[in-house]
Amino acid sequence: MKIDINCDLGESFGAWRLGDDEEVLRYVTSANVACGFHAGDPLAMERTVRAARERGVAVGAHPGFPDLVGFGRRHLETAPGEVRCDLLYQIGALEAFCRVQGVALQHVKPHGALYNLAARDERVAAEVADAVLAFDPRLILVVLAGSAAARVAAEKGCRVAAEAFPDRAYRADGALAPRGQPGAVIHDPDAVERRVVDLVTRGRLTAIDGSLVALRADTLCVHGDTPGAPELARRLRQALEAAGAEVVPLDRVLEPSP
Amino acid sequence: MKIDINCDLGESFGAWRLGDDEEVLRYVTSANVACGFHAGDPLAMERTVRAARERGVAVGAHPGFPDLVGFGRRHLETAPGEVRCDLLYQIGALEAFCRVQGVALQHVKPHGALYNLAARDERVAAEVADAVLAFDPRLILVVLAGSAAARVAAEKGCRVAAEAFPDRAYRADGALAPRGQPGAVIHDPDAVERRVVDLVTRGRLTAIDGSLVALRADTLCVHGDTPGAPELARRLRQALEAAGAEVVPLDRVLEPSP
Amino acid sequence: MKIDINCDLGESFGAWRLGDDEEVLRYVTSANVACGFHAGDPLAMERTVRAARERGVAVGAHPGFPDLVGFGRRHLETAPGEVRCDLLYQIGALEAFCRVQGVALQHVKPHGALYNLAARDERVAAEVADAVLAFDPRLILVVLAGSAAARVAAEKGCRVAAEAFPDRAYRADGALAPRGQPGAVIHDPDAVERRVVDLVTRGRLTAIDGSLVALRADTLCVHGDTPGAPELARRLRQALEAAGAEVVPLDRVLEPSP
Amino acid sequence: MKIDINCDLGESFGAWRLGDDEEVLRYVTSANVACGFHAGDPLAMERTVRAARERGVAVGAHPGFPDLVGFGRRHLETAPGEVRCDLLYQIGALEAFCRVQGVALQHVKPHGALYNLAARDERVAAEVADAVLAFDPRLILVVLAGSAAARVAAEKGCRVAAEAFPDRAYRADGALAPRGQPGAVIHDPDAVERRVVDLVTRGRLTAIDGSLVALRADTLCVHGDTPGAPELARRLRQALEAAGAEVVPLDRVLEPSP
Repeated sequence: MKIDINCDLGESFGAWRLGDDEEVLRYVTSANVACGFHAGDPLAMERTVRAARERGVAVGAHPGFPDLVGFGRRHLETAPGEVRCDLLYQIGALEAFCRVQGVALQHVKPHGALYNLAARDERVAAEVADAVLAFDPRLILVVLAGSAAARVAAEKGCRVAAEAFPDRAYRADGALAPRGQPGAVIHDPDAVERRVVDLVTRGRLTAIDGSLVALRADTLCVHGDTPGAPELARRLRQALEAAGAEVVPLDRVLEPSP
Repeated sequence: MKIDINCDLGESFGAWRLGDDEEVLRYVTSANVACGFHAGDPLAMERTVRAARERGVAVGAHPGFPDLVGFGRRHLETAPGEVRCDLLYQIGALEAFCRVQGVALQHVKPHGALYNLAARDERVAAEVADAVLAFDPRLILVVLAGSAAARVAAEKGCRVAAEAFPDRAYRADGALAPRGQPGAVIHDPDAVERRVVDLVTRGRLTAIDGSLVALRADTLCVHGDTPGAPELARRLRQALEAAGAEVVPLDRVLEPSP
Repeated sequence: MKIDINCDLGESFGAWRLGDDEEVLRYVTSANVACGFHAGDPLAMERTVRAARERGVAVGAHPGFPDLVGFGRRHLETAPGEVRCDLLYQIGALEAFCRVQGVALQHVKPHGALYNLAARDERVAAEVADAVLAFDPRLILVVLAGSAAARVAAEKGCRVAAEAFPDRAYRADGALAPRGQPGAVIHDPDAVERRVVDLVTRGRLTAIDGSLVALRADTLCVHGDTPGAPELARRLRQALEAAGAEVVPLDRVLEPSP
Repeated sequence: MKIDINCDLGESFGAWRLGDDEEVLRYVTSANVACGFHAGDPLAMERTVRAARERGVAVGAHPGFPDLVGFGRRHLETAPGEVRCDLLYQIGALEAFCRVQGVALQHVKPHGALYNLAARDERVAAEVADAVLAFDPRLILVVLAGSAAARVAAEKGCRVAAEAFPDRAYRADGALAPRGQPGAVIHDPDAVERRVVDLVTRGRLTAIDGSLVALRADTLCVHGDTPGAPELARRLRQALEAAGAEVVPLDRVLEPSP
């Protein structure tokens, strides 16, 4: 029973600060570092990689759409090849900071609207997987458990990590309940904690309709911009370890790369 | 007698096109590819690396200040470490496109105001050299012949290439005559051709005051955004080869990396 | 029989130039000036307003999505109120250049993806109309003839100008044939000329299926970034005038504002 | 004895928040609203103008260099006319939000590096004054008391407001002590309060060398991004009113516009 906890980090930009990176890094095992298109600037990227390294937290690229004012949360149409090139650019940029600090880049997790789009659009999912494979086939691609992205990337031979969202409700078919739906976001930390333990130790979740859903997850997402994110990460980690799970970076959750 | 001819390429951005890359690539031996901060977008970067590879032209990163509207030509104050991080970011981004196309990144040439600033400001020159060395000590750093950047980078152990500007006048002390000075830009292609042959075969130039200046150059810059750039590159290459020089990429001009 | 010919202008950005504004301004009667979000910078905006004024061409704002690399051609999700605020910002910015040059801002025409989105999405159309009305109720809003935007804006009391595209095929129901469809773009200038005369003098077009469609247009769009745009504008104007139409700015085509 | 207290507001951008605008607006009389080049987006600008209007605080434009990542704090070279056009653009953009909310734009205060540059560079100061005068001669231009900008703008016939910085030390010649100098920033709120009362009621300040400097100020700057800014603004206002000064928007401090 191994599980990773990931969090988006390095989401500051110039004079603007976002999130309590230092505190969150005490509890998570993988950091998704913003790469400059939706957040993050070169100084912030260096700072974040350094902070993660000092805490022994694995580093991943968190590429997004080129949309600072929308924080990469807005769907953007793309030309063929554009998602692939946008990812290569951002992965390469982050890898430079890892390289000079002696950190091995562990994973890639698309951000915001790009994550959601890849989850449902096979063309985009294929471009994401192509970028990751072409850059370095040892990289792990983090995608929504059960999504188109998960399937397409696995078919292409990508190392795929399935991600679950502890504070989000799921439908009976294993899909996320849309944010608009009442009860879609779970605010009670006790409930989140119980769900996480159930998910990791038994591979199942209670869906929004009360039924049980089988779900396998390699990594759990903690939202860094939620107030109380560090405290939630701390509690989840403690509860998981108490339940006998090993909370470790993704690279140790997945089978070794070939 | 070996010499490289370099040119800035990939300076398009989105719908805007600049320069005749395809034509210039027929005559130059090293391409400085814009990395997104002053020009170039991810699709353009991939396109440019591919075009260079197909022509057997060596690829370098051409990082600039983050200033699209100013095309990286305006001096910008920077915080300590900022130039180093801005370079790491841009070099890493370009290297991703080289990597997936099986091209070895050959060099780094700062763009515009950053090039000029590094030439005279030792703090900035040191940050540029640090970025290049930390990313990959085999990379060649292209700097203004005889500048602070050349000295600082060499002292740090960087592979340094000295650059000369065939269509620019030099002062008797070997410095470039400032653009504002009458005669600072040489428009007659015949004169440019004679100067280049003199420089490469005899290591000297006629300065703006008529005196002879000793100058050693590893690479000659052709400005891609000058009308007639491809034709000038063609003539220079032909004249140099007729004079017995070998026009080859920088990596074959310099001593091999250790 | 009065008709306006409009064209997108001022689409340069920094060092990048696009279109032959000087030449196009000789033949069109209304200029849609880019406002900085998808193209255009403050110096370009001043230059374009001046050039239009010197040619007696009426000036309009051409606001777009904030997407330089995509040239405002990509659909972008927006929060409620965001389109309205993005328009107010851009209209205000352009109006400043009109004001200091003694030019009255005549119209607003949304650009690219925003134009297309407003044509079919009533929420966006309403925000566009709200921005125009709130800024100055005398402004004319240019929208696709027969679109949701035309209807919504008219209901709100906006001065609406219906736009037709001479070089685009229409379906039997009066909608534009999508660009992907064979024959959707008409490349033969003679055919475009005949269509335009038919449209303006008889209020009808031959649809892509050969049927006749009734269509009323206040303004005809000439695409400035098409090679040969100035020549096309010249021919259309000449043909229209030969057919007895008066080619005048929009403000003289529409009824006076109340 | 009338005095204005101004503060920079609306410095958020997209998902990033900066400053406690709501709280500061309770104590200041003039708001400098960021216009999108260094901070502020259209939604933030509308929000800020509305909040100021609701509190009866006068609204001014706070234009800066186009440099989001540097927050407009970095000196940027500009072409002739560029500062003037950058200002017209930003003033026009903000005025649109004022206009639709029935607020009269009161003043313009350049931001950060542009403010500092205008204070010492006559060419830039002249372009700033030209932009303000051309846009609307009733607008007040806020500049550093005793600076080149103050002189140049007054000579051009601009309504000029002299600004003082309560938490900054002054040299004996009335210039600001540079930030690097020990004692240049005054952190003790009691001291700041005493200085402000002295300045407003007696037109003098104690310089960093202990001498007394005569200084006339129309407006006092409170830095919104300093922790404790609202509390400082509250204290200054209270102390000034206790000392008999009338704390009112700039437009009531200066002579009426002609």
